Amino acid sequence: MGKGRVEAFSDGVIAIIITIMVLELKVPEGFDLAALRPMLPVFCAYVLSFIYVGIYWNNHHHMFHAVQKVNGAVLWANLHLLFWLSLLPAVTHWVGQNHLASWPTAMYGVVLFMAAIAYFILTRLLIREHGKESAIAKAVGNDFKGKVSVAIYLAGIGLASIAPWASAVLYTLAAAWWLVPDRRIEHALEA
Amino acid sequence: MGKGRVEAFSDGVIAIIITIMVLELKVPEGFDLAALRPMLPVFCAYVLSFIYVGIYWNNHHHMFHAVQKVNGAVLWANLHLLFWLSLLPAVTHWVGQNHLASWPTAMYGVVLFMAAIAYFILTRLLIREHGKESAIAKAVGNDFKGKVSVAIYLAGIGLASIAPWASAVLYTLAAAWWLVPDRRIEHALEA
Amino acid sequence: MGKGRVEAFSDGVIAIIITIMVLELKVPEGFDLAALRPMLPVFCAYVLSFIYVGIYWNNHHHMFHAVQKVNGAVLWANLHLLFWLSLLPAVTHWVGQNHLASWPTAMYGVVLFMAAIAYFILTRLLIREHGKESAIAKAVGNDFKGKVSVAIYLAGIGLASIAPWASAVLYTLAAAWWLVPDRRIEHALEA
Amino acid sequence: MGKGRVEAFSDGVIAIIITIMVLELKVPEGFDLAALRPMLPVFCAYVLSFIYVGIYWNNHHHMFHAVQKVNGAVLWANLHLLFWLSLLPAVTHWVGQNHLASWPTAMYGVVLFMAAIAYFILTRLLIREHGKESAIAKAVGNDFKGKVSVAIYLAGIGLASIAPWASAVLYTLAAAWWLVPDRRIEHALEA
Repeated sequence: MGKGRVEAFSDGVIAIIITIMVLELKVPEGFDLAALRPMLPVFCAYVLSFIYVGIYWNNHHHMFHAVQKVNGAVLWANLHLLFWLSLLPAVTHWVGQNHLASWPTAMYGVVLFMAAIAYFILTRLLIREHGKESAIAKAVGNDFKGKVSVAIYLAGIGLASIAPWASAVLYTLAAAWWLVPDRRIEHALEA
Repeated sequence: MGKGRVEAFSDGVIAIIITIMVLELKVPEGFDLAALRPMLPVFCAYVLSFIYVGIYWNNHHHMFHAVQKVNGAVLWANLHLLFWLSLLPAVTHWVGQNHLASWPTAMYGVVLFMAAIAYFILTRLLIREHGKESAIAKAVGNDFKGKVSVAIYLAGIGLASIAPWASAVLYTLAAAWWLVPDRRIEHALEA
Repeated sequence: MGKGRVEAFSDGVIAIIITIMVLELKVPEGFDLAALRPMLPVFCAYVLSFIYVGIYWNNHHHMFHAVQKVNGAVLWANLHLLFWLSLLPAVTHWVGQNHLASWPTAMYGVVLFMAAIAYFILTRLLIREHGKESAIAKAVGNDFKGKVSVAIYLAGIGLASIAPWASAVLYTLAAAWWLVPDRRIEHALEA
Repeated sequence: MGKGRVEAFSDGVIAIIITIMVLELKVPEGFDLAALRPMLPVFCAYVLSFIYVGIYWNNHHHMFHAVQKVNGAVLWANLHLLFWLSLLPAVTHWVGQNHLASWPTAMYGVVLFMAAIAYFILTRLLIREHGKESAIAKAVGNDFKGKVSVAIYLAGIGLASIAPWASAVLYTLAAAWWLVPDRRIEHALEA
């Protein structure tokens, strides 16, 4: 079974998620700069989520570049990943609207954590389909970055009840780290 | 006429339907965990509908893999299927918001029933276009799973007035059964 | 310049328009069948608009099948068509919500009229690009159906102030007529 | 790395942005023509933004026609451009709703300015990837039109505090100028 339609469908869903978040950027009531101020936390949360969705699209793009074939389990693992990403706009708005209250900040971390787990499952299923000697298996390697990210998200969830700002810093640092595109797969493909 | 644009358009519509449902996950008013509790039934309804749309995308993907050509009637049968799927977000929210009241639960079943009928019509038109000896005709076979599903949805609609929870269980069981991807077509293509 | 991305972009916009209309199908307040009754006119308007967007996608699909190349003017004529189609969800909801009041019904006709004009302009530009002896020129022919439709929409706009129900019947009849896919181009391509 | 998925993803996001703006065209309360009057400024802002998004899609389409390969930096520069374009629906509605008040008009210019800068960065990264003798480098040339547009947006932002109507005229003139598709790349490709 070809990978073309899986890529196209994922692109479609991710494109919608990344733009749907804009709908939460409600037009301010007034028409001066002060009217924009209450939107600032929502805007910051939106930028961070935009970057996270961008990271997932980028890594998805890179990984599927090395994919040769997909099966039914891969299709569902991919939908599972898209499910968690599709919750990002809702938690983004919840965080932004409540100025980094504890529970919204923790839930944001939970969605990041579950999306990372879903991406991990997708990776494993693709490696199982292609074999341990495949380009995709070598490219993913021991997935150090992925594992550390999961630990960061867990730390963020734990910290949210006492210091939600620390959680926000952790989520932002993890995003900044991922902004560097996944060169492992690029290198493995070139070698 | 090629099938490429039909696949692309269907992917687009299904991707939008599956992500539009998120918009119904309105941000809770408060900022503690209790604020999330009234969202729980909406969330469960959302997960079930996400799985149903995923099932349709998966089966659509598998079936069109065996399709060689499309005609005008197939285009409209496909749009007819997309029409019923596009009603899923609205009934999903109606069910979730009213905590499994009778009429919303019955309407949810009606939309599932009509989508199944629309999928059946699409299947028949594709078999008529490709011939009874085609890969697609053999792969679909007597469509036991599809027929039983229609019976389950009808039972769910009937039960909704007296025991909507039983309807919800039936809809969930049917989804769980379909989660196993349609191996019939995969097998027929490999044989 | 290739036609691939124009088709993909048009498919994307049309897929969004056709599904965005669902968002207007607001969940009813109550949870019995009576709660659905005020939604009935909105639902009927939605079905009619769904069919119109389906007709445009179908005809767009058929026409671009015969297209060999596009230029800058074609890109803008295509965007112009998408602009008028994108207004359909708003007027659909306006008509449905006001139970066929005169002005909304007239505006609905104006959008249909402008979309038909935009489609006509797109057709002319494509014929100019491909030549009068091209497959697309022969396939479009004298465009009898398109011209009569424009007359029907104009009649509907005129009637809206005195008998909006007559306008609705006219719009519905025109849609029913177009539901038959545009076999002219299919035949011209096969010949 | 191929450019196919970058084009598809960009098309998806731009298609959503251009149609999401329609959602802001809220159905008027009444059902006569007077009910439409308060929507007029929103409608005008919508038309202008539709044209701007159309211009970006057109130019993006033309530029990527000359693109041979993409790298990680190009992916992120492209996402950066899409980020600023995705803010257009929100500022469009803010401008329209406040009848060209100073701050919304200035913010509209800021989004146009940042989108132009993002497009410029994308252009530079693509030229660096393809070399100074590449088709894309020759086609872009000294980018006179892009530089003047940036100056126009800056003038619009500056004027917004004293004469927002002048800003609106400037934004409209720049759009009208860009409506002529970017023939530089077409010519360079044909040469």
